Amino acid sequence: MSEKIRVALDAMGGDLAPAAPVEGAVIAVKENKDLTVVLVGKEDTIKAELSKYDYPKDQIEIVNATEVIVTGEPPVKSIQEKKDSSLVVAMKKVRAGEADALVTAGNTGSVLVGGQTIVRREKGVSRAPIGTAVPTEKGVALIVDAGANVDAKPENLVQFAIMGSVYMEKALKINSPKVGLLNVGAEEEKGNALTKEVYQLLKKRKDINFIGNIEGNEISKGKADVIVCDAFAGNILLKMYEGVSKTFLKLIKETFMSSFKSKIGALLVKGSLKETLKVFDVEKYGGAPLLGLSALVVKAHGNSKAPAFATAIKQCISFKEAKINEIIREKINMTEE
Amino acid sequence: MSEKIRVALDAMGGDLAPAAPVEGAVIAVKENKDLTVVLVGKEDTIKAELSKYDYPKDQIEIVNATEVIVTGEPPVKSIQEKKDSSLVVAMKKVRAGEADALVTAGNTGSVLVGGQTIVRREKGVSRAPIGTAVPTEKGVALIVDAGANVDAKPENLVQFAIMGSVYMEKALKINSPKVGLLNVGAEEEKGNALTKEVYQLLKKRKDINFIGNIEGNEISKGKADVIVCDAFAGNILLKMYEGVSKTFLKLIKETFMSSFKSKIGALLVKGSLKETLKVFDVEKYGGAPLLGLSALVVKAHGNSKAPAFATAIKQCISFKEAKINEIIREKINMTEE
Repeated sequence: MSEKIRVALDAMGGDLAPAAPVEGAVIAVKENKDLTVVLVGKEDTIKAELSKYDYPKDQIEIVNATEVIVTGEPPVKSIQEKKDSSLVVAMKKVRAGEADALVTAGNTGSVLVGGQTIVRREKGVSRAPIGTAVPTEKGVALIVDAGANVDAKPENLVQFAIMGSVYMEKALKINSPKVGLLNVGAEEEKGNALTKEVYQLLKKRKDINFIGNIEGNEISKGKADVIVCDAFAGNILLKMYEGVSKTFLKLIKETFMSSFKSKIGALLVKGSLKETLKVFDVEKYGGAPLLGLSALVVKAHGNSKAPAFATAIKQCISFKEAKINEIIREKINMTEE
Repeated sequence: MSEKIRVALDAMGGDLAPAAPVEGAVIAVKENKDLTVVLVGKEDTIKAELSKYDYPKDQIEIVNATEVIVTGEPPVKSIQEKKDSSLVVAMKKVRAGEADALVTAGNTGSVLVGGQTIVRREKGVSRAPIGTAVPTEKGVALIVDAGANVDAKPENLVQFAIMGSVYMEKALKINSPKVGLLNVGAEEEKGNALTKEVYQLLKKRKDINFIGNIEGNEISKGKADVIVCDAFAGNILLKMYEGVSKTFLKLIKETFMSSFKSKIGALLVKGSLKETLKVFDVEKYGGAPLLGLSALVVKAHGNSKAPAFATAIKQCISFKEAKINEIIREKINMTEE
């Protein structure tokens, strides 16, 4: 049914590399016969990992790259100097059209810089944002921009709204996704200089389902499917989400262990609680897409395990099948008229 | 021991007014013989409420005000037009020196506007921020600015750091409070144009314990005692905190009720869990202080009950006893040399 697709995978990126990405590639190719995964990284290491599995040999290729960009390296320097790193080599493959998309769990800063400078932006896109899924009571919402552009301009945010909207509609199959502008109040006149201007611009757009401002406490209720903000607000929001969730879980665990009575109680609720907390597992939605680049780049979480890599690879397939980049290009360039 | 203090209380502000503020005043005066509470609002209504209690009559005064500012009223308009509202009259009492401080659970926007225009800023203070306490694993942290100035300048944030620091040290008795700048990364060069500049200014200050940037996920760990940010970031942070906490509690409750087994388990853990969740009750720290005004204005939560009002009133006593405004004035004006 589907067309052939080639996904480059940074085999050296992430805390569990190369084992987790390699195993993820194996899982993905077994499930999709039209998929080829191009594993980029140290050839010997990758071969050793691959030898552990039985898989369709013609669906996995290896491209050698001798260097690795590690956590905490200065982004610009890492991309400029480590020309033979798995990330840079993989990005060049994508840029050259030898792969349709890229999945990496590498250093976020380097992925962002490489995305802009090697994969490059789609024509008409002024800034490429990163979209990160957060759990809500109703499912999931996409924060755009979650980390790329801290000093964004109003017109950048309008593009984030369009791209996020296309992504949620086409990749996550949400019909007419509701777009909310992250702000400090519900009313149109609320906010800082940036959001006040963005509000007026979004209101005029016919091609998105703009529902107005959304406040921090409304996100987890699932009021909007796409949350538009600059990366400063987006980053603070996401990290707060993560921090509060962790603190909560920690306190609950401590509570359960605090007495004999509560330990017994904990045994009884454990099953249902595990089920509930699955809501907070957003890995099923894949990694965070960098939107507006010439090809899809998916940033998987640094501690991704094999199934998360497989999901991110499958995410690239739906992205391509749904022609998300073509639609983004068309909509963005209509904007510029 | 302590000196006489007069606290004005907006008897008509908040969801549970006038019952809750009036009862709060009664609780507070019974505990502090040097305290006089000036209840401002509709005289008849207040008298009717007061008649329910037995209390030292000479410690509660009533000042009549015929109007009430309600939730959702446009802040500037409400302050300009409702000259005989409980909030405006109470603020004028403070400005005239007839009360040392003000507690109100009224409309936040109106409180901020009235604070700036009626109570007015302390000499040298360029913007008056609102400080809101958030729970952490170690106790509590103060977010300044949590809601007053959405487009703040670098020098405003430096003053927020100084004022927040004095407040945490003197009112909450935290020795040499750690001041963190809310940002998107740990490194000095991270952030947007505003935070990069603020970082350099805070680094130079000898009179605060600046520990560098703090990220959203580090707040609930208790890494800093004072979190400095503009009100846009502060508001998003706070509302997110509130939203995620609520979603968590809701899901946990649903889990407990999901099966017979989990219901039994819930009964066993309930006691300990209640104890744990007390961590998230920040009302014990009082209301949110507006800092940098000529007198302390405490914004109590809209749904405050009587004990919360009593705590906020006591907060005014410690604020005055610790001479927080005098110290702020001195430190801020040293800045300006």
